[in-house]
Amino acid sequence: MAAGESRAEEIGVPCNIAVVDAGAHLVAHIRMDGSQLGSITHAIDKAFTSCAYRRSTEALGRDGQPAAPLYGVANSHQGRVVIFAGGIPLVHASRVAGAVGVSGGTIGEDRSVAEAAFAAF
Amino acid sequence: MAAGESRAEEIGVPCNIAVVDAGAHLVAHIRMDGSQLGSITHAIDKAFTSCAYRRSTEALGRDGQPAAPLYGVANSHQGRVVIFAGGIPLVHASRVAGAVGVSGGTIGEDRSVAEAAFAAF
Amino acid sequence: MAAGESRAEEIGVPCNIAVVDAGAHLVAHIRMDGSQLGSITHAIDKAFTSCAYRRSTEALGRDGQPAAPLYGVANSHQGRVVIFAGGIPLVHASRVAGAVGVSGGTIGEDRSVAEAAFAAF
Amino acid sequence: MAAGESRAEEIGVPCNIAVVDAGAHLVAHIRMDGSQLGSITHAIDKAFTSCAYRRSTEALGRDGQPAAPLYGVANSHQGRVVIFAGGIPLVHASRVAGAVGVSGGTIGEDRSVAEAAFAAF
Repeated sequence: MAAGESRAEEIGVPCNIAVVDAGAHLVAHIRMDGSQLGSITHAIDKAFTSCAYRRSTEALGRDGQPAAPLYGVANSHQGRVVIFAGGIPLVHASRVAGAVGVSGGTIGEDRSVAEAAFAAF
Repeated sequence: MAAGESRAEEIGVPCNIAVVDAGAHLVAHIRMDGSQLGSITHAIDKAFTSCAYRRSTEALGRDGQPAAPLYGVANSHQGRVVIFAGGIPLVHASRVAGAVGVSGGTIGEDRSVAEAAFAAF
Repeated sequence: MAAGESRAEEIGVPCNIAVVDAGAHLVAHIRMDGSQLGSITHAIDKAFTSCAYRRSTEALGRDGQPAAPLYGVANSHQGRVVIFAGGIPLVHASRVAGAVGVSGGTIGEDRSVAEAAFAAF
Repeated sequence: MAAGESRAEEIGVPCNIAVVDAGAHLVAHIRMDGSQLGSITHAIDKAFTSCAYRRSTEALGRDGQPAAPLYGVANSHQGRVVIFAGGIPLVHASRVAGAVGVSGGTIGEDRSVAEAAFAAF
């Protein structure tokens, strides 16, 4: 999470960063000063989504578009499934050990912060 | 369900398989080792959906696309309606006796496992 | 689960039996013929509760009474917390590996079936 | 939060610690290693409750008992209201600036960790 925060500061985008364990349960969450309220839930739910589906929220988002194979997936799990960039599974020895979720900026900025957190992991 | 599990093992895809009764209520569920967490709810809800709408989730999905007749159906029932393949009603003597729902692989794999379960029924 | 089913048959009480993993996620569920519909959710949620709180639902129930230390706990987790007997954590080497939840009979009968499943584990 | 974690380590109780802002929105959350799953939501919701009601969850709990003035309050807000100890409002210059919520041990332990976090604030 520190690596993610550093990256967020570097690009000047206050973010929410969340980490979940292998059971998709919250381990830690931080909201940086100035981040919008709507991003709290997105960060936590992006981490949840990436863990539950073992892929980035961005990849899931491609399959979740109208006419794509998983269209409608975003309606499931009481609306906790996020299908835009910012969630990345934390893979260790071919297993999903958890996931990180980032929200606060554009999806490109969120992805960049999530990748920094992932790289540190 | 045993037939579904056999098919899932045959194609090497750990799945969740769920069966509901004529009232769309869960009768049994099994998660095979190694299946992703997000598929638990999908299997159960695919079975629910197929029973409630008396058609495969795949067929409902065609009608649930933007501009199609039932667009928005996936928002109903607290998000329990699934509109991609893997749910099949169990029809007996022209009546829906229940349904099976499968989730774990691609939608093609899920359909294949559901069809194996259906065939055994 | 087979041990639980045997016990349930022995005492003539059709039950729902559910098992969750260490993350409180459903691994398997079975509803025996003749069990009431309300017990499906209870069995699954008793297993969830016992895993999440690392104790039997009966023990949690003692603390969840009016004026007891955890009064109000049953309102949390979107109402998934069950505070009457039938849920038991599956402890292995001092860690909670999951839990079993049983519902269908009186709380004494549910406890008895859960204990049989626990003993087999 | 660091002060809370120190206190939790001192008494040997792995806790969840959450902080919300004056709008009752999550600012940060940490789950210490070994804490039970059920405590994630409790910590966050205790902080929410203390901020929303401008008092400790323990004080609210006294009013939330059967026959007390606010009996039923724990049913409100989609079950997010917690009425046992562990949530304390963070008061600054007579205004509620936010709240801290702690869950993981007995209510006495949770209160102790929350008070340590409050004192540091």
